[in-house]
Amino acid sequence: MFDFDNTERTNLEEMGEFGLIDYIKKAVELTEKSTIKGIGDDAAVLDFGGKKTLISTDLLLEGIHFDLRYVPLKHLGYKAVQVNLSDIYAMNGIASQITFSIGLSSKFPLEAVEEIYQGALIACKKYNVDLIGGDTSASAQGLVISVTSIGYADADQIVYRSGAQEGDLLCVSGDLGAAYMGLQLLEREKDIYLENPNVQPDLEGKDYIVERQLKPEARKDIVELFAKLGIKPTAMMDISDGLASEILHICRQSDKGCRLYEEKIPLDQMTYDTGREFGIDPTVAALNGGEDYELLFTIAQADHDKIKNLPDISIIGYMTPSTEGCEMISKSGNLYPITAQGWNAFKKKD
Amino acid sequence: MFDFDNTERTNLEEMGEFGLIDYIKKAVELTEKSTIKGIGDDAAVLDFGGKKTLISTDLLLEGIHFDLRYVPLKHLGYKAVQVNLSDIYAMNGIASQITFSIGLSSKFPLEAVEEIYQGALIACKKYNVDLIGGDTSASAQGLVISVTSIGYADADQIVYRSGAQEGDLLCVSGDLGAAYMGLQLLEREKDIYLENPNVQPDLEGKDYIVERQLKPEARKDIVELFAKLGIKPTAMMDISDGLASEILHICRQSDKGCRLYEEKIPLDQMTYDTGREFGIDPTVAALNGGEDYELLFTIAQADHDKIKNLPDISIIGYMTPSTEGCEMISKSGNLYPITAQGWNAFKKKD
Repeated sequence: MFDFDNTERTNLEEMGEFGLIDYIKKAVELTEKSTIKGIGDDAAVLDFGGKKTLISTDLLLEGIHFDLRYVPLKHLGYKAVQVNLSDIYAMNGIASQITFSIGLSSKFPLEAVEEIYQGALIACKKYNVDLIGGDTSASAQGLVISVTSIGYADADQIVYRSGAQEGDLLCVSGDLGAAYMGLQLLEREKDIYLENPNVQPDLEGKDYIVERQLKPEARKDIVELFAKLGIKPTAMMDISDGLASEILHICRQSDKGCRLYEEKIPLDQMTYDTGREFGIDPTVAALNGGEDYELLFTIAQADHDKIKNLPDISIIGYMTPSTEGCEMISKSGNLYPITAQGWNAFKKKD
Repeated sequence: MFDFDNTERTNLEEMGEFGLIDYIKKAVELTEKSTIKGIGDDAAVLDFGGKKTLISTDLLLEGIHFDLRYVPLKHLGYKAVQVNLSDIYAMNGIASQITFSIGLSSKFPLEAVEEIYQGALIACKKYNVDLIGGDTSASAQGLVISVTSIGYADADQIVYRSGAQEGDLLCVSGDLGAAYMGLQLLEREKDIYLENPNVQPDLEGKDYIVERQLKPEARKDIVELFAKLGIKPTAMMDISDGLASEILHICRQSDKGCRLYEEKIPLDQMTYDTGREFGIDPTVAALNGGEDYELLFTIAQADHDKIKNLPDISIIGYMTPSTEGCEMISKSGNLYPITAQGWNAFKKKD
């Protein structure tokens, strides 16, 4: 995991920006019918006919969003795309294109850049998304990745954060807190490795939580499920900063309050067990850990029957008037205000 | 020019990402009718009706694309937008939205971020473009800016780099080489300042070339002029890496050759004079300097009458079969092959 095979190295300095762009152009395949023109001109050209166009963008910086000491480059490329597509699905839209820009030290060999793009292109292929452009540059400092995703939706199917109504059910896809637990595990193994490089990382039996951290999957399947079941959520967003922070976003933007049941928060057994090992309350990991990239949404009570037996969707609470505040009902039956201790990129790490 | 007034400082670490986003949201005004939803949800929503959508993106990194020792932050925000809009105009399209992402040290005060956004928003306002989203993050290293611009055009009005025909006239807007000369001047004054901080920079009478470097203007007016005159260029791109490099792009993608007349390359008198002062051939500055953000385009000979008297457009050559190569006819009448010594971001500075 901590090894990089650098036997073959092609120098980026010799290759230059155009050489690198040519390499990328050859690696990219266009399959989306809304893509008229991809890489190779001043701008890409898209055609969405009568659909609305959705745009989202993310910046990923070395030392802030990822640590190259334990994130394999291919996973990094894959995750950078997933994180961004997730925002399009969170609008109840379908992602169709991305631009992928990268700033990297000229000391990086081409093979490392290939790994990053390979990961990005695997994600594109899996999610039927075209890579249509980007920018490549040297970086005087660390690795920089910027992704913009483009998608579409019928005007009447777009779901904002602001549409939750009183009495709506608060729901979430998948399970929460696992990505955070995976991060704890990777950080621990990194520290052990840095102390003694001969010790191999011990991640055995922890595949699920490590994968949730390194290789998250955006929930396109949930958006497709909504279409199939004829459900349109009243509000939706993806969980990147932690459940608590995202619930507060929906409450604030919808001008509503909510009741969240602690016991209903979906947790995987491995998240639970690892939490016990690390002395971290799994509820706290779900509320404040972030990076789950699950969908948090509200639906009308009338849609309850359509979702009640779906294994991948959990009803975790309901919406109230804003005057009742945003509260969690703990397992012991006490009420606690939900507060966002979510990730603050400008705060120093403890 | 080298002074920053840091008397008022608001700490970004205290403010957090959401505080910063709130600040940005308040500073932004939406006026484009194709903008359905801007900042504040997972993605922005756009509606272009029957038009084609254009997308372009650029990454700007401290130490590579700009030097904060002489680039004022407001100018940096302004230029970051211009550079990106320029790509949309180079498709013969109209820019309508941008996303603006920024990664910065938590040691930056809010006032510095304000300066950058102020510059960006001045550019947006001037060019009728909405800022609809972005990402804000801490950076462990230098300042990072990533801009994606979105625009539109009627399908039959989009101009690619690949459409130049034999016999077409090779044209350029404005004048060239000034941004490069401005950079030489700023670099010289920086060196003098670093040696002796009491010496004030001497830029007197050099406003034009300094402004061309710090505050370029994308040529939306030329695209509007084409529409008014009923001209559709056969090929077009913007000049960011230098005239030579861009001519070779058009020749290669159109599978054509060309003849460029050195004496026809438009140069401002100040570019010429400063070149003499620095011992730099102004033709070389135009060919290889870059950052002019003028439009390079080809038009059919039949359109010659429509442009021949326009002061802002110069005919600098014509297109030939690809077998004749890409050659410059020098002032002394000799033929030289055009070679791109354009900017290579991965090469160390000399």
